[in-house]
Formats: sequence, structure tokens, C-alpha cells
Amino acid sequence: MEEIRLEPPPELNMNIGQAMFSQRAIRRLKPDPISDANLKIILDAASKAPNGGNWQPGRFLVIRDREKIRAFGELYREAWWCKRRDEKHSWTTREEIPDADKVHQSAALLADEIKDAPVIILVFAIRPRMASSVFPPIQNMLLAARSLGIGSTLTSLHPQIMERVYAMFAIPADAEFHACLPLGYPRGRFGPTSRLSTGDTTHWDRWDNPPPWK
Amino acid sequence: MEEIRLEPPPELNMNIGQAMFSQRAIRRLKPDPISDANLKIILDAASKAPNGGNWQPGRFLVIRDREKIRAFGELYREAWWCKRRDEKHSWTTREEIPDADKVHQSAALLADEIKDAPVIILVFAIRPRMASSVFPPIQNMLLAARSLGIGSTLTSLHPQIMERVYAMFAIPADAEFHACLPLGYPRGRFGPTSRLSTGDTTHWDRWDNPPPWK
Repeated sequence: MEEIRLEPPPELNMNIGQAMFSQRAIRRLKPDPISDANLKIILDAASKAPNGGNWQPGRFLVIRDREKIRAFGELYREAWWCKRRDEKHSWTTREEIPDADKVHQSAALLADEIKDAPVIILVFAIRPRMASSVFPPIQNMLLAARSLGIGSTLTSLHPQIMERVYAMFAIPADAEFHACLPLGYPRGRFGPTSRLSTGDTTHWDRWDNPPPWK
Repeated sequence: MEEIRLEPPPELNMNIGQAMFSQRAIRRLKPDPISDANLKIILDAASKAPNGGNWQPGRFLVIRDREKIRAFGELYREAWWCKRRDEKHSWTTREEIPDADKVHQSAALLADEIKDAPVIILVFAIRPRMASSVFPPIQNMLLAARSLGIGSTLTSLHPQIMERVYAMFAIPADAEFHACLPLGYPRGRFGPTSRLSTGDTTHWDRWDNPPPWK
């Protein structure tokens, strides 16, 4: 396969600070389609991220076919509830999740609605132990999507459904699954997130030494 | 620990397409210092990336002390050559690496010179199996650095030196090491990279189906 150079797509014209500082998980998606041109921009952005030894092991399965998304959505929902069982939650329906538990409420809503997402991208690596070479590309995809006004969230799949997913899309066994990204225009809004202060997560020259800021 | 909201730093004003499409591994670093203000911007950018379940497990050890960087640099160099031995390369000095092998030439140069880098950031997770929650933050750091004109490259460390690194910086055993980022202003230039075409790395609805572009 040949390597190519690409110019930055003019559509990726958002200020990088704005894109990064307004990125948030978007799980409530409109069914409106995403153009092939925008998907190409998102995938081209992935290709520019760092990867180990320039092996470029990332491979991207873009699912747009309505019937396939619907069938995949059923597996995704099953997988999501498998994970709750692993976490020893007693819930078995969305109604049982406490209202105050916004993280699980919102993720459960996605598990119900992902079948209506306009696009789902599954991310693989064709070499083993290459997380460090696929998650930087994934972050480029999420930032590129955000700057195009397209929402997404970084999710995973439970092993229980993996064999069926591989069969459904004729995925070769040696492609290692890493992530599932549902994409769509947001019903909600992008916006600021609250996070731990880097004054608390940064160590300065020694683990027991804080940085020179709060 | 308290969560906070942050406004986008006005310094992160590069167009996101330009930042992503001119990001490349910068291994030839000037010794010029990087300001604490710029390091805070880079770490704040990391904090805004997605992470699983909002656990925010990423922790960042920023090494600026000259003596510590020099001592760490010796370990880094030892680790780099250990990895060549694992890869069954017969080289034991930089001079033995073929000129045509630019990837190893450039990485060997970094192994010699990292002792003079103005800053090194080591990235950890305080929960196990959290690569998906630290590499998106790492990519934000690399993009934020690039947009500030600061170069870096995503590297790793060989297990042979790990115990000594943990002792050197009083790192707790339950913090899991993920990456080593040397930072500095570039002696070379940022610029375009050549990568596989996304026409070759993208699959459309099925693994055996190409996308609607070359």
C-alpha cells in the first residue's frame, strides 16, 4: 500500500482550544445522515496521529447500512447490559438505574438508541498490543468530528458479543477490536466538562511534589 | 479532589486541521526551557480528553530538574538499546544502524540526546487496564504542544529499567506506566507526514468492502 501526503481539510477550521475544551461525550444523536465527505475528513484526521514504529496498524470499519446498524444495535444493547452484570449492578432495565446516576442513565439511553445512529465506526489494530497506536487516532477522530459539529463517544463492547460482531461484518480474526464510536449530530449541545484540576493529577520532579499551580 | 471547569486557553489558537496535519514526531530538541504556563496548558488539555466512566485515572509526572533528566536519560538510553536486542537487531552502537533506516536513526539520536531535553513527561494510570483513558489525553498533550510550537514524540520504556525509574521518582507501585514524552522546541520543523491512504485502511459496512473514495 502506498503512502500519501494530505493537505489539512479546510473544513477543520475550528480553533484547537475550542475543540478540545468543548469536547464531551455526545450520546443523544439525531438520525440525520453524515456525508461521506465528512467521514473521509474524520478518517484522514485519524491517519495523521502518532503510531508506534510507523506500523500504522489502525483499521476502521464504518457502518452506515441501516439494517446492519439496527442488527449491531441489538448486540450493543446486549453487551451493555452484560457489562452491568459484570459490575455487579442489580439493574436489568433502564428504569431501575437511579436518576442521580447520570453516567449510567446516559449510557443506557445510548444502548437503547444506538440502533438509530447514522454511523458507527469500529476501530481495530492489525497488530497485537497496539493500544498506543489506535487511541491517538481515535482522539483525532473525536476532535475532528467535534469541530465538524458531529458528536460521538468512545465506547467498548463486551466479549460476549464479539464473535457475532466479527461474523456480522466478516472481520478477520487477527484484527484486534479496540473501540466503538457511534457518530451523529447532537440532540444536546457540546460544552464544557468538569474535570479534576491538573494541580491534583500532576507530579513535579517527584511523585510527592505538586506542580507550581493549583 | 474537586472538579473544575476551565475556559479554553487563548494560547491554543491554532486551526485544528493545521495542528493535526502538521503533527509529526519531533526528536531533535533545543535545550531552551518550556515555561510553567505552557506546561499547565498542555496538562489542562490532557484533562479534557475522554476517559472511561469518568474515572480520570491519568497521572502525569513532569520532570524538569536538570540532574534528574540527566539520570533518567541514561536509563532511557539503556532501555532503548534493550529494545533493539529484543527486536533481534545486531546493532549495539548508533553507527551500526543503516543510514537508510531513518526511523531507527532518529530514535537512536533521541536516546543519546534525551538527557538534554528541557522537559520529560511520564504518563501513568492509577487504575489497571486503562490505555483507552490515557492515550486520548496523550494525543491532546501532543496536539496542544504542537500548537504552542513545542515538539514531542510518543515513546515507551523497556521493562528492564522500570524498577529504577519508579525508585528514582518515588512512583507508587500501583501507578501503571503508559508513555514517555520528551518535550522541547524543535531543531527541525513541523510538517506533513506521509501515511497510508484511508482508502486502504477503511472498510465500508463489511471488511471486504472499500469506502467510496481512493
